[in-house]
Amino acid sequence: MNKWYEEVDNKKDVIISSRVRLARNIKKYPFAAKLGREGAEQLIENVKEVFFAQSEQAKKFYEYYDIGELNSVEKMAMVERHAISPMLINKTDKTGLIMSKDETMSIMINEEDHLRIQSIASGMDIEKALDYANKIDDLLEEQLAYAFDDQFGYLTSCPTNVGTGLRASYMLHTPALESTGKLQIILEAMSKFGVSVRGIYGEGSQGEGSVFQVSNQKSIGQSESDIIENLNSIVKQIADQERKLREKLFTENREKMEDTCFRAYGILKYAREISSKEAVALLSDLKLGAEMGIIKIKDEKPLNVYELFLAIQPANLQKMSGLSLSIEERDISRANYIRKNLPKIV
Amino acid sequence: MNKWYEEVDNKKDVIISSRVRLARNIKKYPFAAKLGREGAEQLIENVKEVFFAQSEQAKKFYEYYDIGELNSVEKMAMVERHAISPMLINKTDKTGLIMSKDETMSIMINEEDHLRIQSIASGMDIEKALDYANKIDDLLEEQLAYAFDDQFGYLTSCPTNVGTGLRASYMLHTPALESTGKLQIILEAMSKFGVSVRGIYGEGSQGEGSVFQVSNQKSIGQSESDIIENLNSIVKQIADQERKLREKLFTENREKMEDTCFRAYGILKYAREISSKEAVALLSDLKLGAEMGIIKIKDEKPLNVYELFLAIQPANLQKMSGLSLSIEERDISRANYIRKNLPKIV
Repeated sequence: MNKWYEEVDNKKDVIISSRVRLARNIKKYPFAAKLGREGAEQLIENVKEVFFAQSEQAKKFYEYYDIGELNSVEKMAMVERHAISPMLINKTDKTGLIMSKDETMSIMINEEDHLRIQSIASGMDIEKALDYANKIDDLLEEQLAYAFDDQFGYLTSCPTNVGTGLRASYMLHTPALESTGKLQIILEAMSKFGVSVRGIYGEGSQGEGSVFQVSNQKSIGQSESDIIENLNSIVKQIADQERKLREKLFTENREKMEDTCFRAYGILKYAREISSKEAVALLSDLKLGAEMGIIKIKDEKPLNVYELFLAIQPANLQKMSGLSLSIEERDISRANYIRKNLPKIV
Repeated sequence: MNKWYEEVDNKKDVIISSRVRLARNIKKYPFAAKLGREGAEQLIENVKEVFFAQSEQAKKFYEYYDIGELNSVEKMAMVERHAISPMLINKTDKTGLIMSKDETMSIMINEEDHLRIQSIASGMDIEKALDYANKIDDLLEEQLAYAFDDQFGYLTSCPTNVGTGLRASYMLHTPALESTGKLQIILEAMSKFGVSVRGIYGEGSQGEGSVFQVSNQKSIGQSESDIIENLNSIVKQIADQERKLREKLFTENREKMEDTCFRAYGILKYAREISSKEAVALLSDLKLGAEMGIIKIKDEKPLNVYELFLAIQPANLQKMSGLSLSIEERDISRANYIRKNLPKIV
C-alpha cells in the first residue's frame, strides 16, 4: 500500500499536504499530566479495544504500536515522517499509537492529551483530512465519553486547544517567496490573522528547503468550518503570491532560474556525500524546476521530491539501511539513495 | 590539423605542456625600444622573406599574421592559447607573427626582442620543444646575423635574457599540493634553485585551476642543457610529490575525493551559467578525478580538460560564437559549450 507521501499529485506545486489533528480526552481518566503509569496502561488498552472492535476493516488497515517497544531509529523515523509527535516518544509514561498502513491516519494515545487523532492528505485537501479525522472521532466518541463542556467545548491539557480541539495545518513549499525575502514579511503579518508558522519539524524548527507549516493559532470561539475557511483563505493567498512570483522571476531572469534548478539536479545526481540540509535545499530547487517546466522528467518513474525529503532524513535513512550509521556514513548513504532514486531528465 | 592542446596524452597527468622560447636580435637593426616605425616594418619584411623563402614546407605549414590587422577578440584568443604574449598585441609599433597551423611553433617579431622563437609540446617533452625551436633558430641564423657577444652570448633587450636567450617552462597541474597548502611551501623554496613560478597567464596572474608555469630564472652562465637539466630535476620532484600526495589523499579519504570530482562533473554537465573562474576550478577537479581513475569516460570521445580550459577563456569563447558577448552572455555560452563537449561518464 502506498504511503500518502508517495502519491504523485500535480496539485502539490506549492501546497504539499494538508493535516488535521483533534485533541480529545476521556472523561473517566485524569488528564495526561496526572494519569500515572497504571492509568496510562488502562487508557491505552481501553482505546485499543474500542478501536479494533469496531470492524474487520480496522484490523486490516490499522496497526497498533507500543511506542516504548520501538527502537530509537524507528521512533525517530516516524517523527520525521510526521506520523507522530516528538512528545509521544519523549514521555516516560507509556504511550501508544494506532496508525493506518498508508500513514494517513493516526491516533496518538497519551500524548499531551489522551487522544490526538491525526489525518494527512496530499496537496490542498484539508476537507478530506477533516472528514477522515471526524469519522474516527465519531466512532471513538460512541464508545468513550469525552471530557466536554457545553460552554467551552472539548477540554484539553493546554488551554490553546480547548474548544474544537482542532489544529488544521498546511505544509507549503515557497522557494520564490523565500529567496526574494518576501516570505518573512508575509509570515510576520500572519499572526494578526490568527495563523502561526513553523518549520517542517514543528515549533522551533527551521524552514528547511523552503518548506513551512501554516496552522490556526486558536481552536476556541470558532466553529471547525470557520477555522478552516480562515486558514484556507490565507493559504490560498500565499500560494497565489508564490506562483505569481515564480512566473515573475522566470520572466525576468530565466537563465538564472534554469541554472539554479539544473545545478541542483547535477549535484544531487553526482554527489557522493551530502548532508541532510544541503540535500533538502537542492531538492527544493529541483522541485521548483520541475513545477516550472524547466526540468523535464524522462523516466516512466515520476519525480516525488517530498518523498525524497522524508526518505533522506537521518532516521529514515538508517531505517532503510538497517544499520546504525555515523554522520559521515549517513552522508554517503544519503547521496547513494538520492542518486539511485532520482529520475532521469530530458 | 590538430592543435597541440587537442592532443590527448596520457602522460599529461601532472605536466600539461613543455614550452621553450629563444630571444634573438638581428645585428643590423637597433633594439626594439629604438627601432621606430620604419625599422619595425623593415625588420618584419626581412624576417618574413627569409622564413618563407626557406622551403615549400614553410609556406604550407606556417602562416603570417599582421598583429595590428587582427581584431581584438582574435588577438586576445591567441594570448589565451599562449600562442603570443600580451606585449605583442599591446605595442604601438608594428608587430608580426609567424605561426605553424598546429600552433606548436611561433615567431613573434618585434616583441621585446626582434625575434621570440617559441615552441610548445604536449606533456613533459621539453627536449622536443627545444629541438624544434633550435631548428627554426638555425635556419634564421643562416640568413640573419644575430647580435651576439663572445663573452655574454646572445644579446637581448632585457639583461635577464642575455646568454642563451632561453626560457624553458612547464605548465603543471598540481591540485593535491595546492589543496593541502604544500604548494606554497614548494614555490617559496624554488627561487633558491633558480626557478620562477607564475600563474597560467604569465607574470602577476593567479594560478587558476591549480595550473602553474615553472621556468628558469636566468639564461646566462649556463648552457642550454644545464638550464633544462636543472629545471627538469625540479619539475620531476614536484610532479612526484603531487602524484604521491594524490594517492595519500585518496587512501585517507576516498569518499571526499570522489565527492569533489563527481560534483565537479555534475555541475559542469548541468550548469546553465558559469564564470571562467568557477569552470576552470571545476575542470581542475574533473581532471584530477579522471587521472585518479575516479571518473571513467564512457564515450569514444576522450576527455581533454586542458583543451576545455583554453576554449572557455573569454576571447576564445567569443571567437567560437562569432559574436561580441557581454559577461552574462559569455557565462551562458561557456556553460553551453562545456555541456556539449563534456564526454559521458560510466
